Amino acid sequence: MDYMVNSLILECPLFRNARRDELTPILNQMQLQPRSFEKGRLVALRGDRVEGLKLLLRGSLSAEIPSPSGKVLKVETLTAPCTVAGPLAFAAENYLPVQLTGLEDGLLLSIPEKQSLVLLSSQPEILKAYLGDCGNKINFLSEKIRLFQFHSLSQKIAHYLLGLVEKQKSSQIRLPMTMETLSDLFGVARPSLSRSLGNLVDQGTLERRGKEFFIPDLEGLREMLED
Amino acid sequence: MDYMVNSLILECPLFRNARRDELTPILNQMQLQPRSFEKGRLVALRGDRVEGLKLLLRGSLSAEIPSPSGKVLKVETLTAPCTVAGPLAFAAENYLPVQLTGLEDGLLLSIPEKQSLVLLSSQPEILKAYLGDCGNKINFLSEKIRLFQFHSLSQKIAHYLLGLVEKQKSSQIRLPMTMETLSDLFGVARPSLSRSLGNLVDQGTLERRGKEFFIPDLEGLREMLED
Repeated sequence: MDYMVNSLILECPLFRNARRDELTPILNQMQLQPRSFEKGRLVALRGDRVEGLKLLLRGSLSAEIPSPSGKVLKVETLTAPCTVAGPLAFAAENYLPVQLTGLEDGLLLSIPEKQSLVLLSSQPEILKAYLGDCGNKINFLSEKIRLFQFHSLSQKIAHYLLGLVEKQKSSQIRLPMTMETLSDLFGVARPSLSRSLGNLVDQGTLERRGKEFFIPDLEGLREMLED
Repeated sequence: MDYMVNSLILECPLFRNARRDELTPILNQMQLQPRSFEKGRLVALRGDRVEGLKLLLRGSLSAEIPSPSGKVLKVETLTAPCTVAGPLAFAAENYLPVQLTGLEDGLLLSIPEKQSLVLLSSQPEILKAYLGDCGNKINFLSEKIRLFQFHSLSQKIAHYLLGLVEKQKSSQIRLPMTMETLSDLFGVARPSLSRSLGNLVDQGTLERRGKEFFIPDLEGLREMLED
């Protein structure tokens, strides 16, 4: 059993660059026991305290916000293997902002805080991966806030693309996230995003070049922000 | 010189719970050299890459966003001792989102990534403090995004207070942040926030009890969200 649990833990992206031979004895000593959950069952409540790392080892979970009327607003789907709730466990207000419901049967592992810190400190590669995820999350949320100043989706896209041009120092840019994540960033459904990008291509403001985009007329994009 | 630098480093909140006797030999070995800066001078440009921990050891910095027109939008003041830029250094897009200008003469220390990871891993108390700051930042940004769904300031406040009631499981709540941070959360100037809270007190929706607030009529607060 322990052997299987440890090999599932090692599948998590958090350990993608870790040296397994050094990690295995640490995990063996911790004797971690995941909790199994069934499809359709509530696994954690909104407001539950998170104390330490949570790893989804198998199956998938729906992260949802329940409303007083009984309706449920789905926030995201978590699919194993992955980390759940990020560094929230270490925040002063360490409450889970969503409830978790099983979408498929699965296994969820909660690692107590003390052991989580030991695990994260055990190899610089693990800590770097974890802090990278934190940094990416903060970047994503900050960008989402910056985009609130624009009302239309095309302005949001223009602002975002100009930011990429500035960062990548080129008019030919690569999108650093999936279309799924990008629609979440803009707060729209995926088809709306595709349509809006399609319009920019039709107008000649944007050119698709394989996996990248080329912007022939930066000035045109800047003018869109002034409306 | 090194002795002075190390004692300034130990002043940083990041090391507030650290065992100094264990930290000092590690710092001595690292031979870190801070860079001094003068009042009024640009210390870092927007778009500069951040690679590792940045600690402001002395003085203060203004974090600003320059606009193409040459105007500068001030984002925040950083006062020593503090950490600059958080876990951004570890993100896939590790660009500084602001420029940094000296408000007073000071000392800024950049710790290379490898040494930063050694430092953070050296004691669970240090890692816990750092991850706590990351978690708090993520909570703050997420809450700010949730509040965008409300148009008026009083609705934002009502939503926020109801969230605190839920988390603290009591109608008597304590505000977990300063008025300064709270006005940033709501995206308003501090006097507007004080005025709006004052109105809620005048209406009888809110009662001040020393450092805490009591909400006599939760239903009234909930109704404010429905307008």
